[in-house]
Parts: sequence; C-alpha cells; structure tokens
Amino acid sequence: MAKFYGIGVGPGDSSLLTLKAVEVLNKIDILYTPEAEKDGGSLALSIAKPHFNEALEIKYRHFPMSFNKAEKEAKWESVAKEVIEDVKEGKDVGFITLGDPMIYSTYVYIMEKLISEIQVETIPGISSFSNIASSQNLPLVMDTEPLIILPCTADEEIIDDAMQKYSCLVLMKVYKKFGMIREKIEKYGLIDHAVLVSNSSQGTEKVYTDLRDINSEEKISYFSTILINKEYMHKAKVNH
Amino acid sequence: MAKFYGIGVGPGDSSLLTLKAVEVLNKIDILYTPEAEKDGGSLALSIAKPHFNEALEIKYRHFPMSFNKAEKEAKWESVAKEVIEDVKEGKDVGFITLGDPMIYSTYVYIMEKLISEIQVETIPGISSFSNIASSQNLPLVMDTEPLIILPCTADEEIIDDAMQKYSCLVLMKVYKKFGMIREKIEKYGLIDHAVLVSNSSQGTEKVYTDLRDINSEEKISYFSTILINKEYMHKAKVNH
Repeated sequence: MAKFYGIGVGPGDSSLLTLKAVEVLNKIDILYTPEAEKDGGSLALSIAKPHFNEALEIKYRHFPMSFNKAEKEAKWESVAKEVIEDVKEGKDVGFITLGDPMIYSTYVYIMEKLISEIQVETIPGISSFSNIASSQNLPLVMDTEPLIILPCTADEEIIDDAMQKYSCLVLMKVYKKFGMIREKIEKYGLIDHAVLVSNSSQGTEKVYTDLRDINSEEKISYFSTILINKEYMHKAKVNH
Repeated sequence: MAKFYGIGVGPGDSSLLTLKAVEVLNKIDILYTPEAEKDGGSLALSIAKPHFNEALEIKYRHFPMSFNKAEKEAKWESVAKEVIEDVKEGKDVGFITLGDPMIYSTYVYIMEKLISEIQVETIPGISSFSNIASSQNLPLVMDTEPLIILPCTADEEIIDDAMQKYSCLVLMKVYKKFGMIREKIEKYGLIDHAVLVSNSSQGTEKVYTDLRDINSEEKISYFSTILINKEYMHKAKVNH
C-alpha cells in the first residue's frame, strides 16, 4: 500500500541520515519540497540528493514565508490535496525536512492535513543540537538533570526563568535575537558556559566557543544554536 | 591517526543508525562494550551487530551498577587506560551507546577520561523520544514552544513546575517512578495528553495511549518514555 513519508534528513552532512531514511528515499516515487531558502528547503534537498533514486520525480512547491496565516494555510492545503491524490493513485510520496520532523519543523503542517486521509510514516532525524553536542564532545545531560530546548523567539520571561533554573539549555532560532540572548547570558553569568554553532555539519559551519568574540554587527546565520551547560562546558572549551 | 569513537546507535531498530555510525563501525579495530543489561550494554550490541566488520575485536568489560562511587570510578578509570593504550598503538577503538551519546549516557564517563589523552570523535544517535514522536506521528514542538526533557528521577519540585509551565514534556527513566508520575499527570489534568512507549522500535515495543490502562502492579520496562503534549496529542491518539 502506498504511503506518505516524512523524512528527517539531519542538520547538514549527508552521512547523518539514518539507514531507514536512505531506504525510504530509495523507494519513493515523488518528493515534495519547499523552495524557500529560509525554511531550509534547498538545504534539505542538497543533503538528501546523494541518496535519491534515478526515477524520483521532484515537485517543487512554494510555501510563502508571509505572516498572512490564511495565505499560508491555503498553500499547505493545496499541496496536501496533491499529495493525497498521488498516494491514492498508488505512488509513494516523500517530504524531506531538516533535523528532526517533530522538532520545530513545518512538516507538521502538512502531516496534520494528511493523517486522516492516507497512511503517514515519519522517520526521525538527527537534530542540530544533538550533532553540535557530539561534534563538540559536550555532554548535555546526565543522571537526574533536565534538558530544556528553547527557541529564542519564546517569551523573554520563559527564557529568563529557564536560564536561572536549569543547568543545560539549548537555544534555537538565534538569528535576529542574538543581541538580546547574549545580554541575558551575560546577565546570568553564563557566558563561560556557552557555545554557539552556526550551520552545524555543513561546509559553512562556524563554532564560537566565546560568545564575546561575536561582533554585534555580524549577521548570525539562520541555522545557529547556542548550547549552555553549567556543568560540563569547561572541558569542551579546553578541548576544542 | 588512530581515534576513539563514541557511537550513538539509536533506540533499538538497526536501521535507525546513521550512515556515519555504520561507516565507523566498519573501520574500527576494537569495540569496548559494557556487559550490564540495565545499562543497555547487550541491547546496544545487538543493534550494532549487523554492521560489525568481520575482523572486529570485542572487549567486554564489566561496569558495576553499584552505588559505590569509588568502585565505579575505578572501573571506568581502568577501562580508559586500556583504551588509551590501544589507541596509542594505532588501533581505532569504538564504544557504542543507546540513543544519543550526549543525553543520559554513561559514555560521558569514559569520554571525559580520554579527551585530554587521545583524539575523541562522538557520533550522534536518534534518541528514543525522537523516535517515539515520529513513530506516533506526534509533533513535539512548533514555533515558539519550549521542549523540556526530564528524567523521572529529578526532584519532584522540578517535575511539578515543568508540568504546569510547559506544553510539551518528555519524561524519561520512568521505570520504578511510574506510580508517582502517573499521579502527577492526573493531578495536573494531563492524562489525556500523555502517551507511554516502552522499548521504542525494538521487537518488544509497547504503546500505551491511555496511561489509565496500565495496571499499577505491571512492571514498566527500564526503557520507557512518556510524552506529554498539551497541544497536539488528540490527533496522535485518534490516529493510532
């Protein structure tokens, strides 16, 4: 029976796909992919490309980044209809997404529109924060420690509370919030416990072990993540 | 130059290894692995086994589960010494660990003893919570939502606070804490937003979409995780 597959392709390096993701890319007939750069559409495509089968049909669809909710909704709705038709005609259809499909991915918008109509299988992927921790040899959590993953676009109150309360924080979607976030990191005395990595595992990866080194005029990549660890950061920094 | 590799093998299904993990398993000369069942030693071994090269030498070492810190420390120290010798003799050495190496893995104990002596490369893995979310088609977080990962062995105060404050919680290490955790889940009105999965992606996987169905006498597997999502759970439950 034909299915729709949501495929997490990891943070950037094509070798960070799972065997299962590769197997699915090998068998699907059609791949839907967003064009928008900011959504990671073209990046996800370049990561998955080495694993495409020769007969794969790629359908590029435009998902507007506009803040007009109705416009976005209509767009996803129309792509979902196309997908449902394809699957009902017996085609295996895929959708690729950066990192993990269930962590801050627009994949969820399309998945929710399909789930009552056709069979949906989601394949997990390596998240950027998990790859950053491993590539920096930086432990995130041990024993009874909580781990909090926060987008820098969250309410400031939530960020303040988390910075004071938890020993390990993953701050995602840094981008234009860098100035505000660095101020808070300084305020809570965490600057020596923080590392920022942009474009993890991509050719353009940048690692900042000292956030003070970042010029406030510098444009921070859209794919930047800050790890803060009050317990283990020292060793990672020394080792780097 | 010879290296030490820490390899995340994911939650159970051998197809959830990354290509990179498989490549490393193919090239290492020696693999160190704990024997203890509870540490997931034998489970990690069975996951990785299909990807072993024929010449691979496996060194089983016993890591006592005792709460005697000095005894444990001495054991890890002696294994670390062996690893350093092997790598200095030009052997590529690996250590496999369930899920992701930087999230609640004893891998960190050995990594920290090696990092100043030899080259260490850590390969990320799919965490059980990420696989549970995908296999249940259950979104974890979107937009500005925080995600908190909590071991059920954390202070109860921290668990209470998180259950009230966040819309998405991952509760790990459920095991003997199940009774206490279910009480809290009921108390905060979250029982209809919770799902428990044991042994995710293993042959023995069990999914409980209603935590009320679990007999309090039932022995909960060591590898059990509860996902709570105040926003998206309904669809996942209906779809199951």
